[in-house]
Amino acid sequence: MLIVMHPHATDEQIDAVVSAVERMGLIAKPIPGSQRTAIGVLGNQGYVDDSTIRELPGVRETIHVSKPYKLVSRDFHPEPTHVNVAGVTFGHGLRPVIIAGPCSVESEEQVNAAAALVKDAGAQMLRGGAFKPRTGPHTFQGLGMAGLALLQEAGRAHGLPVVTEVMRIEQLDVVASHADMIQIGARNMQNFDLLKEVGKSRHPVLLKRGICSTIEEFLAAAEYIVAEGNPHLVLCERGIRSFEPSTRNTLDLSVIPLIQERSHLPIVVDPSHATGTRSLVPVMTRAALVAGADGVMVEVHPDPARALCDGAQSLSGDEFAALMNDVRALLDFLESRQ
Amino acid sequence: MLIVMHPHATDEQIDAVVSAVERMGLIAKPIPGSQRTAIGVLGNQGYVDDSTIRELPGVRETIHVSKPYKLVSRDFHPEPTHVNVAGVTFGHGLRPVIIAGPCSVESEEQVNAAAALVKDAGAQMLRGGAFKPRTGPHTFQGLGMAGLALLQEAGRAHGLPVVTEVMRIEQLDVVASHADMIQIGARNMQNFDLLKEVGKSRHPVLLKRGICSTIEEFLAAAEYIVAEGNPHLVLCERGIRSFEPSTRNTLDLSVIPLIQERSHLPIVVDPSHATGTRSLVPVMTRAALVAGADGVMVEVHPDPARALCDGAQSLSGDEFAALMNDVRALLDFLESRQ
Amino acid sequence: MLIVMHPHATDEQIDAVVSAVERMGLIAKPIPGSQRTAIGVLGNQGYVDDSTIRELPGVRETIHVSKPYKLVSRDFHPEPTHVNVAGVTFGHGLRPVIIAGPCSVESEEQVNAAAALVKDAGAQMLRGGAFKPRTGPHTFQGLGMAGLALLQEAGRAHGLPVVTEVMRIEQLDVVASHADMIQIGARNMQNFDLLKEVGKSRHPVLLKRGICSTIEEFLAAAEYIVAEGNPHLVLCERGIRSFEPSTRNTLDLSVIPLIQERSHLPIVVDPSHATGTRSLVPVMTRAALVAGADGVMVEVHPDPARALCDGAQSLSGDEFAALMNDVRALLDFLESRQ
Amino acid sequence: MLIVMHPHATDEQIDAVVSAVERMGLIAKPIPGSQRTAIGVLGNQGYVDDSTIRELPGVRETIHVSKPYKLVSRDFHPEPTHVNVAGVTFGHGLRPVIIAGPCSVESEEQVNAAAALVKDAGAQMLRGGAFKPRTGPHTFQGLGMAGLALLQEAGRAHGLPVVTEVMRIEQLDVVASHADMIQIGARNMQNFDLLKEVGKSRHPVLLKRGICSTIEEFLAAAEYIVAEGNPHLVLCERGIRSFEPSTRNTLDLSVIPLIQERSHLPIVVDPSHATGTRSLVPVMTRAALVAGADGVMVEVHPDPARALCDGAQSLSGDEFAALMNDVRALLDFLESRQ
Repeated sequence: MLIVMHPHATDEQIDAVVSAVERMGLIAKPIPGSQRTAIGVLGNQGYVDDSTIRELPGVRETIHVSKPYKLVSRDFHPEPTHVNVAGVTFGHGLRPVIIAGPCSVESEEQVNAAAALVKDAGAQMLRGGAFKPRTGPHTFQGLGMAGLALLQEAGRAHGLPVVTEVMRIEQLDVVASHADMIQIGARNMQNFDLLKEVGKSRHPVLLKRGICSTIEEFLAAAEYIVAEGNPHLVLCERGIRSFEPSTRNTLDLSVIPLIQERSHLPIVVDPSHATGTRSLVPVMTRAALVAGADGVMVEVHPDPARALCDGAQSLSGDEFAALMNDVRALLDFLESRQ
Repeated sequence: MLIVMHPHATDEQIDAVVSAVERMGLIAKPIPGSQRTAIGVLGNQGYVDDSTIRELPGVRETIHVSKPYKLVSRDFHPEPTHVNVAGVTFGHGLRPVIIAGPCSVESEEQVNAAAALVKDAGAQMLRGGAFKPRTGPHTFQGLGMAGLALLQEAGRAHGLPVVTEVMRIEQLDVVASHADMIQIGARNMQNFDLLKEVGKSRHPVLLKRGICSTIEEFLAAAEYIVAEGNPHLVLCERGIRSFEPSTRNTLDLSVIPLIQERSHLPIVVDPSHATGTRSLVPVMTRAALVAGADGVMVEVHPDPARALCDGAQSLSGDEFAALMNDVRALLDFLESRQ
Repeated sequence: MLIVMHPHATDEQIDAVVSAVERMGLIAKPIPGSQRTAIGVLGNQGYVDDSTIRELPGVRETIHVSKPYKLVSRDFHPEPTHVNVAGVTFGHGLRPVIIAGPCSVESEEQVNAAAALVKDAGAQMLRGGAFKPRTGPHTFQGLGMAGLALLQEAGRAHGLPVVTEVMRIEQLDVVASHADMIQIGARNMQNFDLLKEVGKSRHPVLLKRGICSTIEEFLAAAEYIVAEGNPHLVLCERGIRSFEPSTRNTLDLSVIPLIQERSHLPIVVDPSHATGTRSLVPVMTRAALVAGADGVMVEVHPDPARALCDGAQSLSGDEFAALMNDVRALLDFLESRQ
Repeated sequence: MLIVMHPHATDEQIDAVVSAVERMGLIAKPIPGSQRTAIGVLGNQGYVDDSTIRELPGVRETIHVSKPYKLVSRDFHPEPTHVNVAGVTFGHGLRPVIIAGPCSVESEEQVNAAAALVKDAGAQMLRGGAFKPRTGPHTFQGLGMAGLALLQEAGRAHGLPVVTEVMRIEQLDVVASHADMIQIGARNMQNFDLLKEVGKSRHPVLLKRGICSTIEEFLAAAEYIVAEGNPHLVLCERGIRSFEPSTRNTLDLSVIPLIQERSHLPIVVDPSHATGTRSLVPVMTRAALVAGADGVMVEVHPDPARALCDGAQSLSGDEFAALMNDVRALLDFLESRQ
């Protein structure tokens, strides 16, 4: 940490800051400048909580050098992590994993039809929501437990590991017993109690970035899970909120190479929730793969016009099959260039 | 809802949209224009889920007229709601309520000292965190259950109702048995399961706006609580995330008159978390009251330089007493002008 | 336009709104609903200025159906526009154009070295700044007129059409006499007088999106140029401002397919200014091309470590040559899939 | 400036960075830490351009301590600046100045009626647009030169200094000869050539913050004007763009105390453009004054329902007179508390 003093800070104020740093068990090293003094803080093993320093008299600002995460950082773990989900493996340098399926499980027929067409088109995992977070209370909230069982059966019948969202701690055991991978949704990215509980299990986790979270906060949330002992973690970018109203969220593909620079964890992209618009999903899927995503998650519905949720962003079976043809050719091309 | 067709939409496409609307039990009324046709949707009792309509061939966009909330709307409940918390009442038109106290409960002495100075300065309620949401796992996480008991005792000893945050459903009963008002933090504003559980109780609730939530989403979250039967709800603005890095968040005081136009619920402001900077808290407290806030919540610590959490934004006892002098004079002035 | 009335609007208020619309020479068509009345406005040939309607008593909000642009819209001009710049052609469906060169022209040697390596690597156009917009007044501001001449000569010597930024109307003639394409920078996207003057010429224009502009505002700015009679216009996405500090701006590649849906104008991408980080430029260049960009503009410097401006985002000659190898293979692959 | 190295940076990389700093004529002081080395940069007289350092091998990031402005900073000019506009003075500690008038000058009668009611209500200055920046080319663009003369006459007739916007350099002389204060609009805040020209005159200037500009960028833009020799500068906050669609922009009143901490220049607030909604203007005017604004600028129109521009945010004469009654009482109250 660097503490920047005001140009007119007195020697007494500088001494007081040095003492405060030393009371925290750290070393303070003043660096006099032509206009002002800065004080370097040394000896910390990680991120320093600056709130007691920041408002001492004469302090202008504090600047952090260390990051609020360590276990998920590439600095101390340069090799990419591979995450195995019932035989399907995510990881930088591996062929990307395609996850597909409906926004929510609506019925046995629907989820089975979705699983069949997803499998036929070549996806490796099945997604489907049983518990749904919805902005308002007056819309379809998911089938709950019944949906969980239907999803598991459809996955087994078609040889596809399944991923589904958990919304509260009490659901964790039952979700873990039905799903091969547990999803933490964007709205729960900073539900720290849920993160800790998921971290205590050894079940593979898909952690979505909050729509208003920086990359640093995203990695700090991931740190909660790994710090509890669960390294089987895959990150998921799904768009951030900006001032632009034309898409539901703004999908920033720059985070893929940035996450890969800073962390060893795999990162996948969800173009369906990011854009909210069916016509944009295929093109953004291809762009995400070229940007280096370790996987993509795409919403597919056997009959999008009758979907109970997010029909506007779901691909039909034919659309998904066409996309998968493109994806296969693109991945073959990318592998040929390595 | 209004459905806007493409300029080149065919009659068949228009007919198909009309049929789809009628299948939803609603009335479709085409409005031909000089360049394109729009289709008005009538007969709905509230917000219509448009996802199955939005991507039909020939549809350019759908425009919502109804809102995703109704019970919290002023349209059908013009009188302001008053919320009574152990004898302290929040409500538009009443004298604003001042809540103050430390970011987190650290010890019996600390919370008692805080309660004493808060009471002496003239605040009506005591705040204090027992369970703390922290961005990274390597910082102080709160005293938990012990903190809850200390807060309750300090409140009783000084005649101040207390408010504290609940972070997970399992904590609800114990928090409700110790606190007069339950706070839902900004990170949990869209933790819908938690909202529903809080809605099933009759305990007063303070719901903070998410840092990335629109006013409409804020009111839709409030609707979850009221829809379950709990009308004792106070809203809290605490800043939104913008591109400006100089303050922790951007406090938009325009939401106060806007919320008061659209909803009958009381709205208070938390200038401490919004700005993150002690020197801005007094001025933004006064501005919030002039903007019509039904209360403010301010962080106060007996010794900010040694606070375990958010010391940089906490007022000392002397600073808070000075602020309360200003607040009293300002509220007297405002009442004299009514 | 649709005018939504309050649920409690009176018949008199509805009649007053109808009269106001009719005074504007338009047709008002009330649509009674179960909760409120809406009034459709017909007969307009384009976007209606709603500011006199919006605050009439009983009006809740106005909703626009028409857009504030027409000439650049695909609705009335479905064929993609091709823009020819001294023999190099931009347009949807054509092979994307690669523009490269230094942030600013620094010397004859530097711009010639840049032109040589850009040409050798296979780019079709040369970029270079003579007049530089800089955030603060105490940094390098460009060579001005001298830089313009050096850029033109370097382009001619290597057979590359050149593009450079114009910052004020008085520079227009001299810039047009030296450059094959005139760039309007992001900070000037809503400098409407400059847009109009550029529209009066027939010189090809590259219009960059403002970092805080919506797609609708971007197209409305383009409309200024085309409305004055200049159809030789290429749009350029270069990132928007968001809360994420890790990249200089947030590059949203979704705008490429969106612009192509809504407009017939070509759209190129500038990954150098968008990301501000050299290591991200190659990957985002490839992603932009897969997303359908009609071109990319990349900063290249013969010696980035000594660049006077934006060295941190400039590729070296070797890095750019390697990128162009990848780009050629990628474009060949994409063409083979059409 | 502080340069933070990667944990695994080699001694050679550290030496190379030290050399690069020294080539810039500055002093480099390495600070070894437990995990990584940082390098303090000393000897600079102001902001250092870091673009050649930032991408040297082994560098993780650079952190700025100095700011990109100096002349407008309070650090070296602690006394507040007073700006005199034809007898009306802006400055911290003085009674705030109220500026009012129509969005645009529409006719002699309209601007005279506006001036009369503004004067009667107690405002000290008259605003009115002659040249209007409009998002799309198909709306009213202002009366131009004719409007300028009408505004000047109305001001003289009613004893009110006038302020109006300049949109291009060629207009500067004629605007300066008709107006007592020249406004630079939000869209031109980074039109650096215009800033420099305005800086060369000694005419008082009102500089509006760009809707997407940080406070640091705002002060750096002000630095352009003062650096050219014009100290007669008043800043104006008018809202920033956020994700919230309920108001036209998000008015962040925290910038008032923040600007007053960092700069000696006066700062006023424009609640009309910030909110875009008439019903919010009075309350946000009062809140701005309590937050310490050195003035406010309010849109007033004799007949808002027939305004050619921004009628939805303009107060009528009666509304403005009522607001001024409140403002007078509030300012008297605030002075009584000093």
